Amino acid sequence: MKVVLIGTLVTGYADDIAAQVKTPWTIKTLPDGSSKEEIAAALIDADAVSPIGWNAQMPPAPKLKLIQVAGAGTDAIDFATIPKGVTVCNAFGHEGAIGEYCVMAMMAWCHEFPKLSRELDKGFMRQTDRANLRHHDEIDGKTVGVVSLGRIGKAVATRAKALGARVLGCNRSAMKEAPGVDEIIPWDDKGRLFAESDFVVVTTALSPETKGLVGPALLGRMKPTGVIVNVARGAVIEEDALYAALAEHKIGGAIIDVWWSYPNAATPEAPPSKHPFHKLPNVILTPHSSGWTTGMRRRRAGQVAANLDHLARGEKLDNVVRPPTS
Amino acid sequence: MKVVLIGTLVTGYADDIAAQVKTPWTIKTLPDGSSKEEIAAALIDADAVSPIGWNAQMPPAPKLKLIQVAGAGTDAIDFATIPKGVTVCNAFGHEGAIGEYCVMAMMAWCHEFPKLSRELDKGFMRQTDRANLRHHDEIDGKTVGVVSLGRIGKAVATRAKALGARVLGCNRSAMKEAPGVDEIIPWDDKGRLFAESDFVVVTTALSPETKGLVGPALLGRMKPTGVIVNVARGAVIEEDALYAALAEHKIGGAIIDVWWSYPNAATPEAPPSKHPFHKLPNVILTPHSSGWTTGMRRRRAGQVAANLDHLARGEKLDNVVRPPTS
Repeated sequence: MKVVLIGTLVTGYADDIAAQVKTPWTIKTLPDGSSKEEIAAALIDADAVSPIGWNAQMPPAPKLKLIQVAGAGTDAIDFATIPKGVTVCNAFGHEGAIGEYCVMAMMAWCHEFPKLSRELDKGFMRQTDRANLRHHDEIDGKTVGVVSLGRIGKAVATRAKALGARVLGCNRSAMKEAPGVDEIIPWDDKGRLFAESDFVVVTTALSPETKGLVGPALLGRMKPTGVIVNVARGAVIEEDALYAALAEHKIGGAIIDVWWSYPNAATPEAPPSKHPFHKLPNVILTPHSSGWTTGMRRRRAGQVAANLDHLARGEKLDNVVRPPTS
Repeated sequence: MKVVLIGTLVTGYADDIAAQVKTPWTIKTLPDGSSKEEIAAALIDADAVSPIGWNAQMPPAPKLKLIQVAGAGTDAIDFATIPKGVTVCNAFGHEGAIGEYCVMAMMAWCHEFPKLSRELDKGFMRQTDRANLRHHDEIDGKTVGVVSLGRIGKAVATRAKALGARVLGCNRSAMKEAPGVDEIIPWDDKGRLFAESDFVVVTTALSPETKGLVGPALLGRMKPTGVIVNVARGAVIEEDALYAALAEHKIGGAIIDVWWSYPNAATPEAPPSKHPFHKLPNVILTPHSSGWTTGMRRRRAGQVAANLDHLARGEKLDNVVRPPTS
């Protein structure tokens, strides 16, 4: 059987998939820049594909049974264009890495790590700026509010709780409790989570219902020292409203890993926002790197391999996002 | 009763002590640069002092009952010069802050945070360097070896364990178990801890027995990718040996918060080492800042205040390092 990995984000998993799959599969890789002809030739006899997205431009794939998205987010999938008989699945394994990133970045904020880790770059210590003479903060005792308690939200909550934070959580579908969460706040009352938290961590999946979820109203509820952390998708937060809140020091700061725009083959260098977030003094910014650990790759490739095995053996697939239509 | 806080590192606690002490005390502060006359006048009727160190140069303090060191380390105390009848106590409250620092810095190392957090400084994302196209590491599954399981060692171990690390520990006085530690390795076999660990965290108090504890022999046991973390005292590690191991890439790297030399009033700008550690590519360096959080100040001032209350009420003192001599 044959699986096609489409796009450089996915073709990097090839070795890890090959190492973990147990049934006989031919793995074909199509990195970014592959021609339409190459893609068409690869898909014509493919049993499964692992892409980031799917749309009407994809060439015919008459044997296709499985679109195994190589990630959790299916916002790049146009479900109306999925061929009949094809199951769409997604994959995880990134939640632990992102959970680590969130607590690391919140501690870095508290401990003034970006500043203090550069202080000795000059080669000497100054008595007047020896850190001993001032005090920074710590995560112990802080209130961390987690918006959406899916896999990532739970990974953040358990780690923040283990480090001494009080953890609040809210989720669109009602929950009574979640690991690491001290108090679940009803979704309709999430303004209180924003108001009580020192850090608000946004992990909500992007969908038409959550686009622009965090705008002036919720940002306006935050403490003047409150820090918002976005590891969901850029568009879950209103770009203009967040920039204004930071530039006008209405909130304490932001830790941003996910963006409103991305480079692509046509625009290989792209500003991640229309606003110059990188010129603000109250931000920690990373290039959508939070989940991209070797551990994530190993775990995620293992999930893709398991579904290939399931398909080859006629077993039930894991992580089904949409069953096949007829 | 009267307590004198000596040195700028201690006088900063005055407000936090005043807020927490329950018995009537007059708090006199002597910041760095106070004259001999000012110190002499303050000590002549002091019941207690809170200094960092004590030596033969200190003026007479005939009423003195308590030297309450404002920290854990008593390496700046010349015990031979302590007046008769005086109890020496120390104080803690820094261990949680240092525990946070250690796991934060180890995660920063794994996640390449110093590099990735600067990647958007240029204002755009480049497709070729989008972090998605490479993978960094995570702390989950790493082996963390903690050298000395005192307050700080335990604070590191419990946090590293909660984040998914396997934790090894060793301690000069034998222990059967410690919180967060998966395996206690006998002190005499600590080379094995160095050999098996991805991170070796040194938390050992400096004493004549531990000066230069980590030298070529133990560094030579480390993995080529192993990272040493020092939050103890600089001199616990041999300066020349560590620099050589890093410069020659014999070990993976170092996270260094404590140094071999410090600035003082006479030399307000001082290199922290005779070697240019700051020019090495494989280091994370901070200016002895790991423990200096507002939470530490509040907790430590609370311990000082408690001992002042104990003294005023004739109660037993906490954290006695040396009982009074007669």
